[in-house]
Amino acid sequence: MSGPVLWLDGALVPAAEARIDPADRGLTLGDGLFETIRVEGGQGMRLDAHFARLGQGADLLGLPVPPGDDRLADAVAAVAGANGLADAAVRLTLTAGPGPRGLPRPTVPRPTLMLTAASLPPPQGPARLVVATVTCRNERSPLSRVKSLNYLDSILARNEATARGADDAVLLNTRGRVAEASAANLFALLDGVWVTPPVGEGALPGVMRAAMIREWAAVERALTVDELGRAEAIRLTTALGVREARVSRCRA
Amino acid sequence: MSGPVLWLDGALVPAAEARIDPADRGLTLGDGLFETIRVEGGQGMRLDAHFARLGQGADLLGLPVPPGDDRLADAVAAVAGANGLADAAVRLTLTAGPGPRGLPRPTVPRPTLMLTAASLPPPQGPARLVVATVTCRNERSPLSRVKSLNYLDSILARNEATARGADDAVLLNTRGRVAEASAANLFALLDGVWVTPPVGEGALPGVMRAAMIREWAAVERALTVDELGRAEAIRLTTALGVREARVSRCRA
Repeated sequence: MSGPVLWLDGALVPAAEARIDPADRGLTLGDGLFETIRVEGGQGMRLDAHFARLGQGADLLGLPVPPGDDRLADAVAAVAGANGLADAAVRLTLTAGPGPRGLPRPTVPRPTLMLTAASLPPPQGPARLVVATVTCRNERSPLSRVKSLNYLDSILARNEATARGADDAVLLNTRGRVAEASAANLFALLDGVWVTPPVGEGALPGVMRAAMIREWAAVERALTVDELGRAEAIRLTTALGVREARVSRCRA
Repeated sequence: MSGPVLWLDGALVPAAEARIDPADRGLTLGDGLFETIRVEGGQGMRLDAHFARLGQGADLLGLPVPPGDDRLADAVAAVAGANGLADAAVRLTLTAGPGPRGLPRPTVPRPTLMLTAASLPPPQGPARLVVATVTCRNERSPLSRVKSLNYLDSILARNEATARGADDAVLLNTRGRVAEASAANLFALLDGVWVTPPVGEGALPGVMRAAMIREWAAVERALTVDELGRAEAIRLTTALGVREARVSRCRA
């Protein structure tokens, strides 16, 4: 197959021919989850952690847990390979599938499972951060602890960062403390110790976050904006990698 | 055409053939908006209010405002008619359209505009309400004031209501006060006066809500759970109609 290929409900399909049902609840209501997985040398990294989080999200949303981890791992490798990518960012999307108008799901849901592959982003210099003022992250919703398709608060924050000449935005929680960046977890070095907000503060339980908490012996505790401003260093973590960051003196 | 028909990017298409791009940001990130419009005798009701809210949402999200209101009104009538429905619930969905991996939109977005039609729901008896405990509505996000595709908090609350034997859930805001029901605005009769939470409390600025504030001379003010419990009457409003409700003594 030429052109990009995706994995949709069990088969590799040319992206140009792949069809999502207009009634898919992932589209109509954001009723679904996703994972972004780093692939190196054809193999997905930290798959156990990704699939565990996917399962926890499915439990919260009441979605059927997707097929076995082995089959998912094969799909991750297959979609990267089909796109000629030994190293890739593979996105796995699980939705509640098609449904009629309204909030209740069909009695027997037919979830949509889709995987796409893209090149890994090139290494980037330090991210200039601003603290988002347009919106905040709702740590009082359990959705803050799963990787759902409801990403608009992050999009609004990122749009604000771009408009203010920065690369990314720090989202505060409803109590005004630091939660995370728009699509990354955040670590701050304070008095020589790496600190990162706990999940209860609105931080997504990131796969790389968990790995770096161990690697950097980081402390999970609430983090204020003042502390962020005087941090000796800041790092953003995503499943794809780690990026240095600094708070920008941009116009508010 | 036999079978359901939808209006997609300017044309009527059999639903079974209509294709949403798997890269559509409405699907991948919930990056979009919708309106649910009541159609009677082939004509959309309160279209000006619906299109004004859609425009406000597009401004907030930074999406191109859709084509002129006349064209939208024609599409509303066309999709109802093509489905043989003189009276209908027409849903208009606007998304940011396809995009590559990540939060930033393409420089030149190609928004998706889709309309679907369904029969109006039959009149229903009083809704039994419970107060959702699983999640809350984030009135601190401007998304609470637009009708976005990010509907998972409402889905979680409705799922909780169903599990507790009720018909619908009341969502509180982050301050613990009443915001709205899972997909309806809420009015409570207190000492003979209809009261409804202001938009700043996390109430969606509903089209029917605005109409009923005028018709019932309702007062917009913060509403506590205690007040809801002792209300003389409760009504839920959506663009499709008004429904009586009462707080259920269900298990928590």
